[in-house]
Amino acid sequence: MQDIILSAPSFKSVIHCGAGAFEKYAPLIGDNAFVITDSNVSALYGDLISSTFGAAPVFVIPAGERSKNYKILIKIFEKMTECGMTRKCTVVALGGGVVGDIAGLAASLYMRGVKIVQIPTTLLSQVDSSVGGKTAIDFNGVKNVIGTFYQPSEVIVDPLFLKTLPAREIRCGLGEIIKYGALDGGIYNTLIKNQDGLFDLAFLESVTADCIRHKAKVVSEDEKDLSGARKTLNLGHTTGHAFELYYKRKSHGEFVLIGTYYELYIAQKSGVCEKSYADSLRALIKKVTNKIPAYADAEQAAQAAKYDKKNERQTSVSIVAPAKIGRSEEIILPLDKYAQLIAECARALAEEK
Amino acid sequence: MQDIILSAPSFKSVIHCGAGAFEKYAPLIGDNAFVITDSNVSALYGDLISSTFGAAPVFVIPAGERSKNYKILIKIFEKMTECGMTRKCTVVALGGGVVGDIAGLAASLYMRGVKIVQIPTTLLSQVDSSVGGKTAIDFNGVKNVIGTFYQPSEVIVDPLFLKTLPAREIRCGLGEIIKYGALDGGIYNTLIKNQDGLFDLAFLESVTADCIRHKAKVVSEDEKDLSGARKTLNLGHTTGHAFELYYKRKSHGEFVLIGTYYELYIAQKSGVCEKSYADSLRALIKKVTNKIPAYADAEQAAQAAKYDKKNERQTSVSIVAPAKIGRSEEIILPLDKYAQLIAECARALAEEK
Repeated sequence: MQDIILSAPSFKSVIHCGAGAFEKYAPLIGDNAFVITDSNVSALYGDLISSTFGAAPVFVIPAGERSKNYKILIKIFEKMTECGMTRKCTVVALGGGVVGDIAGLAASLYMRGVKIVQIPTTLLSQVDSSVGGKTAIDFNGVKNVIGTFYQPSEVIVDPLFLKTLPAREIRCGLGEIIKYGALDGGIYNTLIKNQDGLFDLAFLESVTADCIRHKAKVVSEDEKDLSGARKTLNLGHTTGHAFELYYKRKSHGEFVLIGTYYELYIAQKSGVCEKSYADSLRALIKKVTNKIPAYADAEQAAQAAKYDKKNERQTSVSIVAPAKIGRSEEIILPLDKYAQLIAECARALAEEK
Repeated sequence: MQDIILSAPSFKSVIHCGAGAFEKYAPLIGDNAFVITDSNVSALYGDLISSTFGAAPVFVIPAGERSKNYKILIKIFEKMTECGMTRKCTVVALGGGVVGDIAGLAASLYMRGVKIVQIPTTLLSQVDSSVGGKTAIDFNGVKNVIGTFYQPSEVIVDPLFLKTLPAREIRCGLGEIIKYGALDGGIYNTLIKNQDGLFDLAFLESVTADCIRHKAKVVSEDEKDLSGARKTLNLGHTTGHAFELYYKRKSHGEFVLIGTYYELYIAQKSGVCEKSYADSLRALIKKVTNKIPAYADAEQAAQAAKYDKKNERQTSVSIVAPAKIGRSEEIILPLDKYAQLIAECARALAEEK
């Protein structure tokens, strides 16, 4: 077990990582907890929740991305006020990214901010979304358009919860882990060394801490996504989000994998990334999933990148491209050019098959 | 005209104070404005809004405290997303405290925070609520229970808008001004010197800047209401809020006046405040309103103080009492004792009549 400190300008978070972290730290949260979880986690870990948090109110949201909406947020506030939660309460987010995002937003708004402890239960949320203080709900068809920056006081990252995760959820988490591999030379080397055991739980526990350490460093430099450091974490996400918006299928982590794969094509074509390095990242991606879709309408789908809230330009698109080991570069392209390159990549993929 | 700088840990606000501030600074806000105002301001200043902000979208909320609810907030977000507002937009809050609070909250949440410029149009909001970055809506019967701390980039305080204010609204603002008089020796002396011209617009313009300067200093020391400095701004508010909750009539500023009057009784009875100073503050209050109600059910009404979100104790009540010129003291009382003293004050008031 190890503690990683995230010293953001607004607040210091402590991230407890490793087996046993839940058992050690969750019971210390105390009497004033208000637990938010989802229907999947509640079904699997109901007994653990009641033995750990005793009589604390538990609010269960339906599992799935669709719960990240304002109606659920309002229901959380209703329960919090009805239970008479005071400024001294602590919201506990026990679940994946959806639970973490909406519970974080609720905590940041209730009485202008109460404590929040994140206890991520999916690999994706452990490795990425539970750390860094971004909270959000989706609204009017726009992803994460309503939210805050609000650091959790603690994050408890315990592999205990990974044991019950379906393989697909592990793949999703590996999508973000490979993103960190493309940003951080140390993580890249670890991934290459363990490329035949990426799904191994002990390996995942240790690489998760590496990814969190990388993210904590970036967020402490650029908490509010202003200076560009935090923008690097968007690697694979421009295209991933565009596909996510257009195809409305699969989940975030898988789209990050697919997005990274497609963006590698652009990185190579633009001369930003050498073939051998791009090949090795593609090989890693294929260790996680051997189904990178050769979308027939990729060009149209890529146009959806203009709806991303990070895209302020409307007529051009920015991607964070892997350049060499431990280095990425921003590439800004006219939207049409970007969409053409995405379509080229799709045709190349179709020919491979 | 003068600029006052509020250097909060999270952000630096500039407050432009004085006649001509609107004409000088509002047109500089630029193309990306999203104006939020209310039906009263829109009726009085519709032409000024369109000549100043051109084609910017204008969202008009119904005038009145009841608009501080989540349904209006959601409608604001609908309009913002429909108008395609980006991260670079600036929300303009043109109105009183209700507009400022809800627009501030909307700006703090949209895309995790866009710029906000506060242009307060009532004396109460000029002197107090537009400065300091507290944003909120009411929810489930609890005042300001959902909100954020989010500093405006600029506040434009122009007496221009006071000319159309009803006398009652001026009284409300004077309620907060007298509160600042009880906290700040300089403001106290100014008020005493001008006690026969409190409603004079030139006087109000100058004392408003004094109050803002006091508030800016307090907020820069204790932005998030943690260390106690900001708590002093609650003078008169514990009892004011309790009466506001119980009687559901009058408006915030008037209740602050009434609350300060009642709390002066407690301050004197507790030996915190000398009679002569308490008398001079009471005399000031009576220059603003000669109707301090002698509530028959004051004891019951005072019990409502336990529902204040600032009250974490449930069985006791904290008030910020005037002690001597430029000094206040916190008094913590058991709820019952507090309610008895409030009732005593009401009986004393009834006998005076």
